[in-house]
Amino acid sequence: MLEQLKQDVCNANLDLVAKGVVIYTWGNVSGISDDRKYMVIKPSGVDYDGMSAEDMVVVDIESGETVEGKWKPSSDTKTHLELYKRFPEIKGIVHTHSTNAVAFAQAGINIPALGTTHADYFYGDIPCTRELSKEEVMEAYELNTGKVIIETIEKMNYDPMAIPGIVVKNHGPFAWGSSPANAVYNAVVMENVAEMDIKTLLLNSQAEMKQYVLDKHYMRKHGPNAYYGQK
Amino acid sequence: MLEQLKQDVCNANLDLVAKGVVIYTWGNVSGISDDRKYMVIKPSGVDYDGMSAEDMVVVDIESGETVEGKWKPSSDTKTHLELYKRFPEIKGIVHTHSTNAVAFAQAGINIPALGTTHADYFYGDIPCTRELSKEEVMEAYELNTGKVIIETIEKMNYDPMAIPGIVVKNHGPFAWGSSPANAVYNAVVMENVAEMDIKTLLLNSQAEMKQYVLDKHYMRKHGPNAYYGQK
Amino acid sequence: MLEQLKQDVCNANLDLVAKGVVIYTWGNVSGISDDRKYMVIKPSGVDYDGMSAEDMVVVDIESGETVEGKWKPSSDTKTHLELYKRFPEIKGIVHTHSTNAVAFAQAGINIPALGTTHADYFYGDIPCTRELSKEEVMEAYELNTGKVIIETIEKMNYDPMAIPGIVVKNHGPFAWGSSPANAVYNAVVMENVAEMDIKTLLLNSQAEMKQYVLDKHYMRKHGPNAYYGQK
Amino acid sequence: MLEQLKQDVCNANLDLVAKGVVIYTWGNVSGISDDRKYMVIKPSGVDYDGMSAEDMVVVDIESGETVEGKWKPSSDTKTHLELYKRFPEIKGIVHTHSTNAVAFAQAGINIPALGTTHADYFYGDIPCTRELSKEEVMEAYELNTGKVIIETIEKMNYDPMAIPGIVVKNHGPFAWGSSPANAVYNAVVMENVAEMDIKTLLLNSQAEMKQYVLDKHYMRKHGPNAYYGQK
Repeated sequence: MLEQLKQDVCNANLDLVAKGVVIYTWGNVSGISDDRKYMVIKPSGVDYDGMSAEDMVVVDIESGETVEGKWKPSSDTKTHLELYKRFPEIKGIVHTHSTNAVAFAQAGINIPALGTTHADYFYGDIPCTRELSKEEVMEAYELNTGKVIIETIEKMNYDPMAIPGIVVKNHGPFAWGSSPANAVYNAVVMENVAEMDIKTLLLNSQAEMKQYVLDKHYMRKHGPNAYYGQK
Repeated sequence: MLEQLKQDVCNANLDLVAKGVVIYTWGNVSGISDDRKYMVIKPSGVDYDGMSAEDMVVVDIESGETVEGKWKPSSDTKTHLELYKRFPEIKGIVHTHSTNAVAFAQAGINIPALGTTHADYFYGDIPCTRELSKEEVMEAYELNTGKVIIETIEKMNYDPMAIPGIVVKNHGPFAWGSSPANAVYNAVVMENVAEMDIKTLLLNSQAEMKQYVLDKHYMRKHGPNAYYGQK
Repeated sequence: MLEQLKQDVCNANLDLVAKGVVIYTWGNVSGISDDRKYMVIKPSGVDYDGMSAEDMVVVDIESGETVEGKWKPSSDTKTHLELYKRFPEIKGIVHTHSTNAVAFAQAGINIPALGTTHADYFYGDIPCTRELSKEEVMEAYELNTGKVIIETIEKMNYDPMAIPGIVVKNHGPFAWGSSPANAVYNAVVMENVAEMDIKTLLLNSQAEMKQYVLDKHYMRKHGPNAYYGQK
Repeated sequence: MLEQLKQDVCNANLDLVAKGVVIYTWGNVSGISDDRKYMVIKPSGVDYDGMSAEDMVVVDIESGETVEGKWKPSSDTKTHLELYKRFPEIKGIVHTHSTNAVAFAQAGINIPALGTTHADYFYGDIPCTRELSKEEVMEAYELNTGKVIIETIEKMNYDPMAIPGIVVKNHGPFAWGSSPANAVYNAVVMENVAEMDIKTLLLNSQAEMKQYVLDKHYMRKHGPNAYYGQK
């Protein structure tokens, strides 16, 4: 079942390695079926070398049960499911431990919107979630990781497709998008922007970007009158 | 038309990727015809993989209209045109989002001339432009980006070929040169110098270079009695 | 003798280069035989290019004498032997001069447990040893390097397999594990975590991670009820 | 003439690129004939791509005149000659603009001996020269660059083979050694040590290494009773 989606999710996982944002098994990508009944996700703790579409795991969105696949799904499965269930626009999700985005997660600081590289893809600061409580971690860690991402988005009341990523405190980045490949793209952008921002803040701790520059760059790519790119 | 220039511009665009200063579609290179009637530029938002000379777009310098090509030209087309029209010495222009130069753009700080690597190619600090006003951004962003680059050069009253690059506040580096390939070369130098300078300033925030060292290094390569290189 | 172990140790040494944590001869890996009578280790000062299993040196654990091999063993041999003798769980040991871990060694600072990347492999801060005294250095440097590693672990009273690495003051990282390959894996993790931590501390010098997050991540991979990975 | 030396010097130049310490034409390596009558050096401003032994230039040590070769020698030729004439132990010299060593040169700060990676090759801080005066730069820049290196070594009264490299204020690193290849090796070590030191100083601005650790590591590789490596 879902052979094309398995291939897409596998390719997106391998692209994490090719783009240099993942080593070993430090990342996972998932995608959702068009009817939003099934998620296809990387198996847990399996190496990228030699990984193929057949290694992907199909999980039922509602029950969270594996419905096809020879491996256990990623340990972050419940985080992915929570996001798919809450935000119907999301069609692909990625988690990595890329160095510069992790630095913001560990520092507990938003990745600030300081330039047009950021503005081209993320319409505002990329938030860092609050810390999970001991109870949240102990009871249902991965589920609550999904919940704290949702809580952050809801409290700040923004469209998750306009800021398609977040860093979870002490953990690392999650990104999403209109497909598994697009989610990976956004994860790579976030890592690059995080590196730019660390260096920027070392040069000028008061750096900032005006809202109208953010508006302009985001809108020329994503607004109703977008004119960046073809067609 | 302009088949050789298309090939040169295409090669220069691909060199951005090879030199590691661009990922995805984060850069563009253009060149100008010998009669300065036409600009050849990368298409907007098209990936570098598989790009060939035929994908390049020919734009009329005066009218800004596309006169040949199957794609829309780079969204930064008006910035390029403005520079070509103002400075007849410029024969190639490049824009990237290379990490270290962007850090200076985001910090709103000139890339200071701290060493001979810089002095070999840039005869003085590489300026950071002022911030565009809201009106400038809203009315004609790309055109005004070109205008603020020109304003910066005119106010400081220097030869743009002696400092063949600039960083635009909150945006990133533009570089230019005597050909598309030379513009890319200068963009790569700027990125390397920016990295050196960030590290230098972390070691010594008061670092500086004497004017006579700048004079010597720049002139031994570019002055009337230059003796660096062959012939 | 020990042909398989020689191959494993050789492969693990070559993996140091492939993973980018070693240049030239700046690292060594060893493994121990199942009966814990012999150690197989990289020869001293021999380049990685063209290295094969036959170049590995077999050393008697008790006597420290070479029992097979055409080369002298690594100059760090006595450090390795000391660790194998004290901790029977250790089956592979690696030493490198990887940049970011060395920065902590030179700074004389523990690599703090600031995030889940760390917590997935190291159950607490990765300690930096005390400085060796002049006498310790002059009398038996490599032996005493092993002893100060052991002293650090014993004073802090933790399981060396739960924090499978350390940085030696002014020197660099040592890591170990359940096999030569696993030791290299832990050395690579340490280097990545060290880079994340340097960047984190630049963003927020007060960064920290709650103990319960450390517990959760370490235990979901290594605890009695571990559920990360397959089976 | 000197065909083997030309090949060695060419290989050493190409190794600069392979080791990542040079881009474009930003470096040069030379070697000296056994009778110390001739220097073989990279041509000035010639690209590394396709460079072969025949491109190397033979220069007379005493007169400084080119005696063989189709190109002009490196613009740094007089610096190299000055060092060969003053220090008969030196058999190869290299100059680069490697990023981290340049940062120290631009900051005007010695690369401090903070760890054993440094101590294995450099027996003490790697000095940064004083600034050249305007007269020194204007009259005979490259010659005086050689002189200020010699002045630094003589004032501090150390064996240049024990600290086989230096950074020239506002310029960059020079390294030397017992052969062209060994000089490149030392240049690569210096660049790596410089990166380690920048990161160390960011973590702990007071970092230092005891003299006896420096003694031990340097001597176990280079002292009369050296035991590192083979034979």
